[in-house]
Amino acid sequence: MEFFYSEKNGWNKWLKSIASKKYSSCFVLVDQNTAKHCLPYFKKQVDFPFTLITVAGGEASKNLKTCTVIWEALLKGGADRHSLLIILGGGVLTDMGAFAAATFQRGIQFTVVPTSLMAMTDAAIGGKTGVNFGPIKNQIGTFTQAESLLLDTRFLNTLPLLELHSGFAELLKHGILKGGTYWKQLASLSTPTIPYLEKLLPVSISYKQHIVDADAKESGLRKVLNFGHTIGHAIESLHLAKRKPITHGAAVLQGMWVEIVLSVAHAGLKPEIANQLFEVLERFTKIPTYTEKEISLLLSYLQHDKKNNSGNCQFVLLEAIGKPVFNQVVALDHIAHALRIC
Amino acid sequence: MEFFYSEKNGWNKWLKSIASKKYSSCFVLVDQNTAKHCLPYFKKQVDFPFTLITVAGGEASKNLKTCTVIWEALLKGGADRHSLLIILGGGVLTDMGAFAAATFQRGIQFTVVPTSLMAMTDAAIGGKTGVNFGPIKNQIGTFTQAESLLLDTRFLNTLPLLELHSGFAELLKHGILKGGTYWKQLASLSTPTIPYLEKLLPVSISYKQHIVDADAKESGLRKVLNFGHTIGHAIESLHLAKRKPITHGAAVLQGMWVEIVLSVAHAGLKPEIANQLFEVLERFTKIPTYTEKEISLLLSYLQHDKKNNSGNCQFVLLEAIGKPVFNQVVALDHIAHALRIC
Repeated sequence: MEFFYSEKNGWNKWLKSIASKKYSSCFVLVDQNTAKHCLPYFKKQVDFPFTLITVAGGEASKNLKTCTVIWEALLKGGADRHSLLIILGGGVLTDMGAFAAATFQRGIQFTVVPTSLMAMTDAAIGGKTGVNFGPIKNQIGTFTQAESLLLDTRFLNTLPLLELHSGFAELLKHGILKGGTYWKQLASLSTPTIPYLEKLLPVSISYKQHIVDADAKESGLRKVLNFGHTIGHAIESLHLAKRKPITHGAAVLQGMWVEIVLSVAHAGLKPEIANQLFEVLERFTKIPTYTEKEISLLLSYLQHDKKNNSGNCQFVLLEAIGKPVFNQVVALDHIAHALRIC
Repeated sequence: MEFFYSEKNGWNKWLKSIASKKYSSCFVLVDQNTAKHCLPYFKKQVDFPFTLITVAGGEASKNLKTCTVIWEALLKGGADRHSLLIILGGGVLTDMGAFAAATFQRGIQFTVVPTSLMAMTDAAIGGKTGVNFGPIKNQIGTFTQAESLLLDTRFLNTLPLLELHSGFAELLKHGILKGGTYWKQLASLSTPTIPYLEKLLPVSISYKQHIVDADAKESGLRKVLNFGHTIGHAIESLHLAKRKPITHGAAVLQGMWVEIVLSVAHAGLKPEIANQLFEVLERFTKIPTYTEKEISLLLSYLQHDKKNNSGNCQFVLLEAIGKPVFNQVVALDHIAHALRIC
């Protein structure tokens, strides 16, 4: 996967790379939001003809029905195996568009232009494609790497603060996992500003890509990137079922919170370190609290988690900052306990 | 991909191989036909517990809706990333089941027990997974290799003659492409009998696997295996749209016929060799004839073919028996002409 950075003449290099591949046709996938906020700027940068595909945005549209709309549009536009799909959007669209491309005629090439911080730091890197299946997140998907990624932080200017905070959760996660200077830089931030993010993003991207290169299909090391996500995905499913979706990042922040509680009980994380972590997380999320009914729903979602093995819920826990451990089985009653005492 | 042959203690070795992988759970996918005709024998061979998934059979069921039934059954049965899907069926089921497995939780392992000659010689080998999308064949899919294949020709005893002939089309195709002794053996056959097929199948399987190993994603050499399939798939689409489906093999036999006509006009195949080929094909198919309306529909399906490049229809043509050439562009009016003069 090739990376192009706008501040390093990225648009030009990206356009040249696309031209050199001699695709038979190009398609640009947007959702209603990026059609409005990002497409006008995108159009000014590109110099080739393309067919536009517009779909509904948001987590609730991340399903096979929307993929069907994409596949139909590709067919109608005469796409063949040598066509290119350019995905201009946030994490929901990059996951779903990548899945649609990966399975259309057994796979066409695609390139990603992420427009949200979440997609820039996480979703668009690493080849995880997918859609939700009923209330269960990313249940149907593939591991398929994009041809390339173009990073332009100017798209962040159009992003609501809520979404900026959402994406920042993944940067915080990378900081906690990587530790050292990177964590210190992040821990000192009270508000993520775009000039600051421009400096942090390349560190996050190269940290993630380094791990993906070592273990693309998540059979070992890559699992550490799921820190905060086992509980986080269950929290997202809970909100999706209630028809009150929250951002992925908000769910991951709460997920990391609960998994830090679990780390103290099950991985020897020192309570004072946990408190340091809570102090930083508290700047970006509320302390999570759950009713007994919610806890029982969360546990049922956890039992369907893709990362389970033989029905056991597996977590990434922290022994220390910068020292994650994966494949940590925690019993359901201990998880319930952690959800109660947050 | 590992191959197990029943006459070489295959069931035992296959069972041992499955046991050694320590899957968290096993699922067996059948359709209504294989549930009735193949499952009783299968059950006698296996020694482990499994959850049965039964779906409708036939080409008309090869779609995302049926995949949804499979995914729901996997979820309900508690499948996780370490589960195994065993597909007991013909080509439709092995294609679709493999796609369902390849995309469930971004891919679970699957093993194939083909029950039709078509699946034994072609569909179950080579990692092409997929479902139809509307009337267009295999439009949505992936390239994903099965973990293993178990070949037991006893399943052929339960197969209607029509299906046996259908599968034999792929053996004939392999013979035409490979040429030499293998073609001579096939050309001398008037009726494929099971003891004879038992001898031919390993040759066909190893010929196909050899080509797939050299070019898994069909960027070059593997394209030769599409001989007869460009026209053949359009013929299948035509029949599917008319709600009078024909077997894949019957379509491929007609497809090879038309593509031999094209080979004489565009690849220098000698007319006397074409006549030798027609003489063999005639034992298993009628001489194809099409109305003008059908020809215009066939041409429209051809324009959606996955193998196209920049809207051009590409064919595998024959310079001689054993000498296929791929990426041969033929203009639509020449294709129409060939369809008229068959």
